[in-house]
Amino acid sequence: MSRDSNYDHHISIFSPNGRLYQVEYAFKAAASASGLTSVACRGSDTCAMVTQKKVPERLIDPSSVSNVYTIIPSIGCLMTGHSPDCKALVSRMRYEANDFQYKYGYPIPVGSLAQRIADIAQVNTQKASFRPLACTAMLVSVDDEKGPSLYKVDPAGHFLPFKATASGAKEQEATNYFEKKVGDLSGYNADETVRCAIMCLGSVLGSDFRGSEIEVCTVEKGGKFKKLSEEETERHLNDIAEMDA
Amino acid sequence: MSRDSNYDHHISIFSPNGRLYQVEYAFKAAASASGLTSVACRGSDTCAMVTQKKVPERLIDPSSVSNVYTIIPSIGCLMTGHSPDCKALVSRMRYEANDFQYKYGYPIPVGSLAQRIADIAQVNTQKASFRPLACTAMLVSVDDEKGPSLYKVDPAGHFLPFKATASGAKEQEATNYFEKKVGDLSGYNADETVRCAIMCLGSVLGSDFRGSEIEVCTVEKGGKFKKLSEEETERHLNDIAEMDA
Amino acid sequence: MSRDSNYDHHISIFSPNGRLYQVEYAFKAAASASGLTSVACRGSDTCAMVTQKKVPERLIDPSSVSNVYTIIPSIGCLMTGHSPDCKALVSRMRYEANDFQYKYGYPIPVGSLAQRIADIAQVNTQKASFRPLACTAMLVSVDDEKGPSLYKVDPAGHFLPFKATASGAKEQEATNYFEKKVGDLSGYNADETVRCAIMCLGSVLGSDFRGSEIEVCTVEKGGKFKKLSEEETERHLNDIAEMDA
Amino acid sequence: MSRDSNYDHHISIFSPNGRLYQVEYAFKAAASASGLTSVACRGSDTCAMVTQKKVPERLIDPSSVSNVYTIIPSIGCLMTGHSPDCKALVSRMRYEANDFQYKYGYPIPVGSLAQRIADIAQVNTQKASFRPLACTAMLVSVDDEKGPSLYKVDPAGHFLPFKATASGAKEQEATNYFEKKVGDLSGYNADETVRCAIMCLGSVLGSDFRGSEIEVCTVEKGGKFKKLSEEETERHLNDIAEMDA
Amino acid sequence: MSRDSNYDHHISIFSPNGRLYQVEYAFKAAASASGLTSVACRGSDTCAMVTQKKVPERLIDPSSVSNVYTIIPSIGCLMTGHSPDCKALVSRMRYEANDFQYKYGYPIPVGSLAQRIADIAQVNTQKASFRPLACTAMLVSVDDEKGPSLYKVDPAGHFLPFKATASGAKEQEATNYFEKKVGDLSGYNADETVRCAIMCLGSVLGSDFRGSEIEVCTVEKGGKFKKLSEEETERHLNDIAEMDA
Amino acid sequence: MSRDSNYDHHISIFSPNGRLYQVEYAFKAAASASGLTSVACRGSDTCAMVTQKKVPERLIDPSSVSNVYTIIPSIGCLMTGHSPDCKALVSRMRYEANDFQYKYGYPIPVGSLAQRIADIAQVNTQKASFRPLACTAMLVSVDDEKGPSLYKVDPAGHFLPFKATASGAKEQEATNYFEKKVGDLSGYNADETVRCAIMCLGSVLGSDFRGSEIEVCTVEKGGKFKKLSEEETERHLNDIAEMDA
Amino acid sequence: MSRDSNYDHHISIFSPNGRLYQVEYAFKAAASASGLTSVACRGSDTCAMVTQKKVPERLIDPSSVSNVYTIIPSIGCLMTGHSPDCKALVSRMRYEANDFQYKYGYPIPVGSLAQRIADIAQVNTQKASFRPLACTAMLVSVDDEKGPSLYKVDPAGHFLPFKATASGAKEQEATNYFEKKVGDLSGYNADETVRCAIMCLGSVLGSDFRGSEIEVCTVEKGGKFKKLSEEETERHLNDIAEMDA
Repeated sequence: MSRDSNYDHHISIFSPNGRLYQVEYAFKAAASASGLTSVACRGSDTCAMVTQKKVPERLIDPSSVSNVYTIIPSIGCLMTGHSPDCKALVSRMRYEANDFQYKYGYPIPVGSLAQRIADIAQVNTQKASFRPLACTAMLVSVDDEKGPSLYKVDPAGHFLPFKATASGAKEQEATNYFEKKVGDLSGYNADETVRCAIMCLGSVLGSDFRGSEIEVCTVEKGGKFKKLSEEETERHLNDIAEMDA
Repeated sequence: MSRDSNYDHHISIFSPNGRLYQVEYAFKAAASASGLTSVACRGSDTCAMVTQKKVPERLIDPSSVSNVYTIIPSIGCLMTGHSPDCKALVSRMRYEANDFQYKYGYPIPVGSLAQRIADIAQVNTQKASFRPLACTAMLVSVDDEKGPSLYKVDPAGHFLPFKATASGAKEQEATNYFEKKVGDLSGYNADETVRCAIMCLGSVLGSDFRGSEIEVCTVEKGGKFKKLSEEETERHLNDIAEMDA
Repeated sequence: MSRDSNYDHHISIFSPNGRLYQVEYAFKAAASASGLTSVACRGSDTCAMVTQKKVPERLIDPSSVSNVYTIIPSIGCLMTGHSPDCKALVSRMRYEANDFQYKYGYPIPVGSLAQRIADIAQVNTQKASFRPLACTAMLVSVDDEKGPSLYKVDPAGHFLPFKATASGAKEQEATNYFEKKVGDLSGYNADETVRCAIMCLGSVLGSDFRGSEIEVCTVEKGGKFKKLSEEETERHLNDIAEMDA
Repeated sequence: MSRDSNYDHHISIFSPNGRLYQVEYAFKAAASASGLTSVACRGSDTCAMVTQKKVPERLIDPSSVSNVYTIIPSIGCLMTGHSPDCKALVSRMRYEANDFQYKYGYPIPVGSLAQRIADIAQVNTQKASFRPLACTAMLVSVDDEKGPSLYKVDPAGHFLPFKATASGAKEQEATNYFEKKVGDLSGYNADETVRCAIMCLGSVLGSDFRGSEIEVCTVEKGGKFKKLSEEETERHLNDIAEMDA
Repeated sequence: MSRDSNYDHHISIFSPNGRLYQVEYAFKAAASASGLTSVACRGSDTCAMVTQKKVPERLIDPSSVSNVYTIIPSIGCLMTGHSPDCKALVSRMRYEANDFQYKYGYPIPVGSLAQRIADIAQVNTQKASFRPLACTAMLVSVDDEKGPSLYKVDPAGHFLPFKATASGAKEQEATNYFEKKVGDLSGYNADETVRCAIMCLGSVLGSDFRGSEIEVCTVEKGGKFKKLSEEETERHLNDIAEMDA
Repeated sequence: MSRDSNYDHHISIFSPNGRLYQVEYAFKAAASASGLTSVACRGSDTCAMVTQKKVPERLIDPSSVSNVYTIIPSIGCLMTGHSPDCKALVSRMRYEANDFQYKYGYPIPVGSLAQRIADIAQVNTQKASFRPLACTAMLVSVDDEKGPSLYKVDPAGHFLPFKATASGAKEQEATNYFEKKVGDLSGYNADETVRCAIMCLGSVLGSDFRGSEIEVCTVEKGGKFKKLSEEETERHLNDIAEMDA
Repeated sequence: MSRDSNYDHHISIFSPNGRLYQVEYAFKAAASASGLTSVACRGSDTCAMVTQKKVPERLIDPSSVSNVYTIIPSIGCLMTGHSPDCKALVSRMRYEANDFQYKYGYPIPVGSLAQRIADIAQVNTQKASFRPLACTAMLVSVDDEKGPSLYKVDPAGHFLPFKATASGAKEQEATNYFEKKVGDLSGYNADETVRCAIMCLGSVLGSDFRGSEIEVCTVEKGGKFKKLSEEETERHLNDIAEMDA
């Protein structure tokens, strides 16, 4: 152990057993940074993402606390991890998206954006002078060709499309929840999709919450990525409560 | 402990538990550098910031000792931390603000400025050859769209809008004070907002002060960011004293 | 041992016995990263590649889990190793292929692409500031002049054309299997080539699998590189089963 | 102690308690380099600076030994510290002043120059490849708008306007002396200002000196920065002696 | 020993006795990498090179396993050492040769090419950020002016013209063999030259081989560099066998 | 001691007591490199420099052994220290002088040249990647405005005008000698100035020497910098001998 | 000793006693690399250089083994030391010579070339990222103005004109030999000069040699630098033998 620990002080070297320690530490940093859990799933023609909204201090304007970002009107992003790294990556994503639009004349497909960002993250694990970013990005859009799309990009530079996924403190529990629903998911309409994500988060957190305690965002076929208002969120919570009743 | 201490000699590496030690040390440096406390809050259409004014030597022209900076006429900034880092960041903010005005033809919104500066601070935590800046910036403006806005940017590159916030030696105490007032804050008019900030600082410092011992600055809807004169400050102090009486 | 271990912290130095440890560790990382095995072989006028398809999580869209990439219509690639490195190398291959087409006006021959990528991998083993890529690429195409071509590029920058080859967890076993068939391979027609690859993988994994559990891709003379659909794969599996019966 | 000493070999890292050791060592180097003391004060419309003139060797042309520099006709500078660093900084100040004049068409205000130089000094404390400069600069001018101005810039990149200040070996004693006079200073006319500075230096050094043993420089409203001739200095010394008598 | 071993972790430093350890290790890596032996000699107007052809795996297309490269039609090259380094150097040689042709309008003379490549190898032993290349190049051509030319370039950057030379595992034995023939070599016609090289390799390996087990290449006056076909090689082997008989 | 010795392996860091060890070592190297002593003084309108001329080997052309350099016709230079550093600095001085002439259209004043070179030397003490130069330069000229000028620039980047100065092995003794003469020096005519320098060197070396054993150079008002011929030197030596008699 | 050894791992730092260890090691490497001795001397209007010609292997074309290089027709060079460094420096000299000719329209004087190369060598002793070159260059030419010129440039960057000099294994012995002849050298005609150099080498090696065992090169007034043919060399050897007889 003491010997192997020598391999974790440099970004760009392997340990004798082929591990990249600094990348593993970056995952740990991303998971523990905020203590929040985020979930996302996609239905027949909708993607929905839900995350906890914990205002770290009561003095912060709750309306400004958000891990949800619109990259371009059709692509939304939910970040989990070390907040400054999250925001830096969002800035980069917006830059890459605009650069694509400028060069090619049409909006960047969500898969291309996910790949571009993953490539950047990969370089941070290969190059000696930059540390990896301690954050995970979930990207959603309804692609003209592929339909509803949900991608996750992590500190090592993996990017994968998911039917449903989660990140953060209770990532494993949320994943378990979704796995039970995975058969039905692709048949869900817009409302069912949103509610599935909300119920998942409620289930893993083991508690009820109010509309102000979560962030719900969604993108539908033909529509733009949007964050639900507290009222809209409450309406979904009420519907869920009635269903349970 | 002795093992973990090996991870704190490099800017851009994680410790095994995902911590960035140099960033934590920069926070410590920022908090302890001046020993001063700064507070800020926003009312219905005003932002106010108050900080202690301790002339480090009697020979310094008191009128020149200030942690309050006008970035552009509509955006003010209150810096807390290692003084040279504060001033270097102010220079950078002015450069970024002018650059924005030049490129886009209108003044930089305060939120964009806060994000830009936070991105720069984030890079200093990711890149191997620069240390993080040991200072915290509080930025205020009355945004045309969002109304009164108060942002805080820290050495790690966080930036967040606040209803009220504090930084420096008694940051926690001031935060506690504001939390009790947070319900009323958004209803305060200009004078009430300023007084709330002054009273907060007075409360946490546990002492009366004269107009020359604090710096009070404010920005109102439709107006420019300005620092109150000693007379204006005294007037507020007198009003507060009368209210108490 | 403890002495020699000093030579494995730097990318660009030799150990006293002429070894490049970081390159060896990269091989280890490439082999152990995914735990999957990939095989490839070429027949009279066809190349076929088969790899395991293990959807790491049930929530991932199985249709999107793939280690098979089309570089240009006539060249296909099967990556094995650390996934982000795989994808970064694919991005680079596509860039190099487009750059070649743009410069010379015709598609890059698969051998030139393999060499270009191998040169890039070699530099990562010689230069101090980048680690080697932990992945192996198998490239196939039916070259206008050389006929069916199968190349393998590894983390050290080797590139070689093969009649059949394998990489990943059971590389050795698959190699042994192919060696027994090597006499017949060049006479195989398209279907026989594909089935040979499938049977090889089945043999080394010691288990039956369904069409959804493997990825089969192929490129035929005069055709484009394509991935077989699940149905096409199933048909081959059935044919194999019947042959065994 | 032995643990903390590990943090002082790099320019750009913090110690666990937030200190920048190399910057502290630079202050020590600046203070001890020449062993001289410099003082400066500003009156109603004059700034005066006085420093010891110790010709390090009798063979040096005394007329050329000087720590007083004219940056531009209206701005003077008194350097204390490691002589080569002093002179390098003076070169830089002249460059910056000329650059400003060239760009904007009017002479650089003394405050802008102080800030620019302080920003440069700050970078030397943040960047890994340059050590901080071991010198302190005192800058004087009579600003068109702010009247007599006296700034001090130190190795950490602080810059502050002073009513009176000192640097070097007996900085503290000179500061104490000035603090007793601070009430009267702003009322002093040109001669009184010069004498105050001379008397301060005489007091802290506890000895009489001749006109050739000190350097006296001054800048008056509407005039240029100039160094007094030995005769002029003697006249002041005589006046002081008469006043004492 | 333990003291001196400190000097072998850096490319660009000498040991106290003037040795460059990393360069020595690169030689060791070059010699041991492939385990093969290569020989070359030049006759009256021909150069011939012969190397073992060991197909590392039976699955590799034997026709593609080759250490023989045509740099330009008139210059051939036989590489021995770490395969990726060999191929990277071949790429560089081709680039340098084309660059020369483009700039000066005629093919690069083989001596100029050898010198250029040796200069590049030398820089890799002098510069801190790149390791030396672990390979040896033998270059042959029939120069318009100098007649048949044979050069060897090694990891240290030596380049020398030879009458006959060898590299790899049995370099010394092959050298001994040639030394006995050196008197006759320059009188050999094309066939004798080729056979001399083949017999040398046969002698040091102590075994007969078939045409498929060696690579034979040759360049004659007025002709192009070419690799012999298996049949041509067999014919030489038969002739040799008959001569022995 | 062992602790402090850690601070002397890097060019650009201070020791805890503010010392720059590498700069101190450079002084030591400069003083001990050649073992020679150089002296220089200036009279009423002449500068003279004298140094020992020790031909290190009898085989060196004595006429070419010289530490005296003409930078431009009006400026001469006497170098003491590590010979390659001396010559590199002379090259740089000539470049800087030519650059000045080209830019401004008149010859560089000797003081400007001394300052420029000192700035360059200072950077070598501040920047991490270059060691300081181990040499001292004495520069002489008769300035149009300032009259005879003698400057010394050392490894730390100090530059100062002197009435008389020395450097090298017996620097201190020569300095002592000159200090006794300093009152008379400025009244000396050309011949007296030259003889004073010669006598100084003779005195500190405690031995007679012939014209071929020293280098004597001089620059007079209105004239060019020149090195005396052996005959001219002998004439001065004879005059001195007669004076002594 | 163990303490001081810490200073020899970096190119650009001084040891506490002012030594540059890496430069000293480079000298050792240069002297021991080839084991050969080279000598050179200049007569009344001729320069001659002689070196041992040891063909390292019998297989090397003896006509190609040479340490003698023509830089431009009028300047010749004899290199001693680490062969790749020698050849790299020769490439650089040719580049510098051509660059000079191109820029100024006339051939580079030998002294300017020696100085330029010495400056480059000096930089390699001052800069952190390149090691010094382990070779010594002797340059000869008959300068239009200075007549026969002989320069030596070493790894530290010294360059000096010599009447006669030597380098390599028996440098000291050859120097002793020449010192006895130094009085006569400048009167020698072309043949006498060449023979003096040959006899010197013969004397220090204590053995007779044949024309094929040494390299003799010479440049005469009005002529070009040339290497003597074996026959010409034999003729000199015979003349010497007759003189001895």
